[in-house]
Amino acid sequence: MGLLETIGGPADLRRLDRSQLDALAAEIRTFLVRSVARTGGHLGPNLGVVELTLALHRVFDSPSDVLLFDTGHQSYVHKLVTGRREGFETLRQKGGLSGYPSRAESPHDVIENSHASTSLSYADGMAKAFQLQGRSDRRVVAVIGDGALTGGMAWEAINNIAAGDRPVVIVVNDNERSYAPTIGGLARHLATLRTTRGYERFLDWGKATLARTPVVGQPIFETLHGMKKGIKDIVAPQGMFEDLGLKYVGPVDGHDIDALEHALRQAKAFGGPVIVHAITRKGNGYQPAESFEADLFHAVGVIDPETGEPLASSGTSWTSVFADEMVTIGASRPDVVGITAAMCIPVGLDSFARAYPGRVFDVGIAEQHATTSAAGMATAGMHPVVAVYATFLNRAFDQVLLDVALHKCGVTFVLDRAGVTGDDGASHNGMWDLSILQVVPGLRLAAPRDAETLRQELREAVAVDDAPTVVRFPKGKVPAAIPAVGTVGGCDVLRREGDEDVLIVSVGAMAGLCLEVADRLTAQGVGVTVVDPRWVKPVDPALVPLAARHDLVVTVEDGVRRGGVGGAVAQALRDAGVLTPLRDFGIPEQFLDHGKVAEVNAEIGLTAQEVSRQVVEAVAKLSASYGSATFS
Amino acid sequence: MGLLETIGGPADLRRLDRSQLDALAAEIRTFLVRSVARTGGHLGPNLGVVELTLALHRVFDSPSDVLLFDTGHQSYVHKLVTGRREGFETLRQKGGLSGYPSRAESPHDVIENSHASTSLSYADGMAKAFQLQGRSDRRVVAVIGDGALTGGMAWEAINNIAAGDRPVVIVVNDNERSYAPTIGGLARHLATLRTTRGYERFLDWGKATLARTPVVGQPIFETLHGMKKGIKDIVAPQGMFEDLGLKYVGPVDGHDIDALEHALRQAKAFGGPVIVHAITRKGNGYQPAESFEADLFHAVGVIDPETGEPLASSGTSWTSVFADEMVTIGASRPDVVGITAAMCIPVGLDSFARAYPGRVFDVGIAEQHATTSAAGMATAGMHPVVAVYATFLNRAFDQVLLDVALHKCGVTFVLDRAGVTGDDGASHNGMWDLSILQVVPGLRLAAPRDAETLRQELREAVAVDDAPTVVRFPKGKVPAAIPAVGTVGGCDVLRREGDEDVLIVSVGAMAGLCLEVADRLTAQGVGVTVVDPRWVKPVDPALVPLAARHDLVVTVEDGVRRGGVGGAVAQALRDAGVLTPLRDFGIPEQFLDHGKVAEVNAEIGLTAQEVSRQVVEAVAKLSASYGSATFS
Repeated sequence: MGLLETIGGPADLRRLDRSQLDALAAEIRTFLVRSVARTGGHLGPNLGVVELTLALHRVFDSPSDVLLFDTGHQSYVHKLVTGRREGFETLRQKGGLSGYPSRAESPHDVIENSHASTSLSYADGMAKAFQLQGRSDRRVVAVIGDGALTGGMAWEAINNIAAGDRPVVIVVNDNERSYAPTIGGLARHLATLRTTRGYERFLDWGKATLARTPVVGQPIFETLHGMKKGIKDIVAPQGMFEDLGLKYVGPVDGHDIDALEHALRQAKAFGGPVIVHAITRKGNGYQPAESFEADLFHAVGVIDPETGEPLASSGTSWTSVFADEMVTIGASRPDVVGITAAMCIPVGLDSFARAYPGRVFDVGIAEQHATTSAAGMATAGMHPVVAVYATFLNRAFDQVLLDVALHKCGVTFVLDRAGVTGDDGASHNGMWDLSILQVVPGLRLAAPRDAETLRQELREAVAVDDAPTVVRFPKGKVPAAIPAVGTVGGCDVLRREGDEDVLIVSVGAMAGLCLEVADRLTAQGVGVTVVDPRWVKPVDPALVPLAARHDLVVTVEDGVRRGGVGGAVAQALRDAGVLTPLRDFGIPEQFLDHGKVAEVNAEIGLTAQEVSRQVVEAVAKLSASYGSATFS
Repeated sequence: MGLLETIGGPADLRRLDRSQLDALAAEIRTFLVRSVARTGGHLGPNLGVVELTLALHRVFDSPSDVLLFDTGHQSYVHKLVTGRREGFETLRQKGGLSGYPSRAESPHDVIENSHASTSLSYADGMAKAFQLQGRSDRRVVAVIGDGALTGGMAWEAINNIAAGDRPVVIVVNDNERSYAPTIGGLARHLATLRTTRGYERFLDWGKATLARTPVVGQPIFETLHGMKKGIKDIVAPQGMFEDLGLKYVGPVDGHDIDALEHALRQAKAFGGPVIVHAITRKGNGYQPAESFEADLFHAVGVIDPETGEPLASSGTSWTSVFADEMVTIGASRPDVVGITAAMCIPVGLDSFARAYPGRVFDVGIAEQHATTSAAGMATAGMHPVVAVYATFLNRAFDQVLLDVALHKCGVTFVLDRAGVTGDDGASHNGMWDLSILQVVPGLRLAAPRDAETLRQELREAVAVDDAPTVVRFPKGKVPAAIPAVGTVGGCDVLRREGDEDVLIVSVGAMAGLCLEVADRLTAQGVGVTVVDPRWVKPVDPALVPLAARHDLVVTVEDGVRRGGVGGAVAQALRDAGVLTPLRDFGIPEQFLDHGKVAEVNAEIGLTAQEVSRQVVEAVAKLSASYGSATFS
């Protein structure tokens, strides 16, 4: 390598000439493909913003000017040119570089969050602060995809930014996709803007003509500027952004560094709120990613860098079990429809969409609308299945509570990537749903433990027509079948061994861990019952007398401990006057650093070894206080 | 009265001629002013939609066509003409009519929710369902204020509606205000549309001209229609709604029934997604409400119908204590700024805004943006105070969690109207914050019990610069000072009487109730300690040994029991191995019907009488199992 190694920070970029920039861009692409092929990560989005990132760092002066990357997975190039080339091979590994911006890594990073559409709100806030501080020289630049613009937060922010006079530059990275192709009226409008070059052509012509036509007493370009508004109304649609009060610059080729720099300098000089509309291609410059299966290269696991073929392990994923069962359900239930927030393939609704054309609705990166439009459909007699990553349902908490539950709508939420997800870092973990959904009156929540219970519980969920239902399962491969040895109430009994010393209440995919804990306890002569309640909300009343018969209740869940299933079981026992002590295991109140799922679980003590160690300790204490007769 | 009594349903409206309609509108206004003056309620918004509601019910055929009222407080006229004139005097009273649409009341009602900006998502969902069912004859009409359009959900919905071909009619009830004047780029654009009548005038001229100019082989109006798009680009801004793909009809005078009906019939005939832009005046026809203090008539208590003067009781509100303390804080803390989501006066930021011009930001009905722009401001060195009704923070849960807490931003959230709010019904109760905020790492939550603790805790909150802080208090009058008799850790001890039998942990405004419970227990010879932890999250470690010394712990909070403060205290005790039993009192897992606060509290058992009854019962049980020695 040559040039990339010489780039220690943005200032080094500003010293390069045009041919060096082109060479650098090519080097960065090669570097990204080789490196991400080894670590996994968001390949396509970063290949699409190589030139844009270089131009941004040449025109603006980070960190005095603030560069904000929306849905920060498009920040790899930014990392490379802000001193993080070395160490890039540790991307997404425990203790290594984050797959998102990270304030711990660099003063050039601001937003660590991977949820979409937040950057414009940050930008508005920072610009307001700089203005109050008399630092309006500090530009705020937000880079946001056309997909993220479909999220409601982005609209709220644009409405505010447009009303101000602060130097906020919104760079729309328009690759016509979020994860999937961007949907909606906005996408159509962006397409219109993309294809309407008449205005720019007219300006070019005007510039050439006026340059040869002196206007007395008035500089040519001011005249041109004065004419601009009027001309624009005739030769091109004015555009919704200008209607709202934002200056619009573009469209500009997002792979042409000169054009990008020109547009960004215009935007910077303007001093008020501006949109720069840059057209990019996801995966640009990498043949496999540019192909028609571009969505597959949005985020990749470990791949062969030449062919782009995944080198992944085999096995059936939770997602595909859901996907298959949805197709089965769809055949007998014409009222069942699917809703996705711009992630049809990752959440497994693509096979349903193919099997039943017209019955899957992609609403954009818009979980609020996904939820409330589902309520509307349910009100009109359909049964929508909203399939979404668990962490993203946080965006629609109010809508689940009021628009669905208060209205007693039969809507099923399928939460994929629940629990610890690992390498995508803090904000991707699906660890809050089990707690916040507890407060939703009437909502029923299932956590399947294997493929068969996922299929069963999904069928049970779509059979409920007067309340929200939730089925949640983790990322990755579904384990081998974990059979029940009996039932108690609605709970599956997974193990019954020895005396009724310890009752383990296993939540969903924690079943494997719980059975391992049971093995360890049994080996130490402690009697164990392991149950899977299947539906963890509401608490199965059968758990209460069962708990009363045991000496210790242990709950294990892959969600935050506070307010989770363990807390709900404990409350049910308190309410019934059952004094059996309870130990609740789950995720502590903290954000989780990225790493492999097993590494993260080990760090937070969510392993069979640690849980059994603590249970044995608790048993010993109880044994000491009650007398040893209790435990044989 | 005359005409109104003859209106049993929408069909009766269609029989009236124009002069009867005007008379009916006048009757309805008189009826509303007299009735709402007695019951309290949303007066201004309903006076503004009299003609609009009549026109809607004459043009569309509810309930086959679906009428959706966003932020349903504008549905009083709708209630009057759909069979609910009788009984209107029970508005917002326990067992009486809801102040919002209610599906239990009428098949003409669909959305019961009072949170803004949901109607377009419902509309999109219902229209999608009707299309799948082959019932595209069923129109869906959503009436939404210009204020509610500033909410992100509305944007997500418009993006989806515009992309479809379904017969969705969006009626923008544009009164230039949400609660306060509507802000942002959208407001400016609506103003442009309002004042640009050139297009309509041109069409009128065109219609007149063409009617006299036969065009060979083509009906005149089709020719006109074909010209329309081209003409429009020249004589009027095209408008962002048409850019997105929505047909735009308007602006139309929202108090001219003929004009409204004409516009609505056009929209109905179009068959695809249409926006009808109706200009209304909040409080129209009622002099006090039309005056410059119009915001005060948005929602009124009991008033004198002639003058509009409130007949309310005196006393200092929680809100005004907050308002005053903010002004004090603002003087010594130039970094402190206020943020409101379109409710500057109700949340008490108006005095701060007057004292420190430029330091309060109204972001529109946009809690997500309020929160994340606050994070942005904090990132840039300010300390924002986001003041919002407790229930509306649900809209920004994800933003509090990830944009503020993950980023360790010093942002203070002040939650007004926390706990049971009573007559506004299910969705206005601020009963979820204590639970859902528990899962936010690092977040600190204070619940003041009186004016002085509110002032103290607010000052403590704005002193925290590396984590979100929350101060929450109820609606209404602040009680007389409740002094501490001592402290334990960070907790105020409010009472210490007799043996350490029962420890009552009082959350915020529950202090009065808890002291009354203490009185009753003391009277029965039960020793009581009452503590106010002041900061209820995180759990004060001092509570653990204190609880261990007592025989029973009782927690009382005005939030849902599930996952609330009681649950957090119970978990802290479990984690410490403290086996003292705990009873947690709070709001059960249900939506609360409207009624006076005291009536609602009585219904859910959140009274001193009921709590002490249950505590005495629990004490008796413990006494029986432990032997009577414990309780003297």
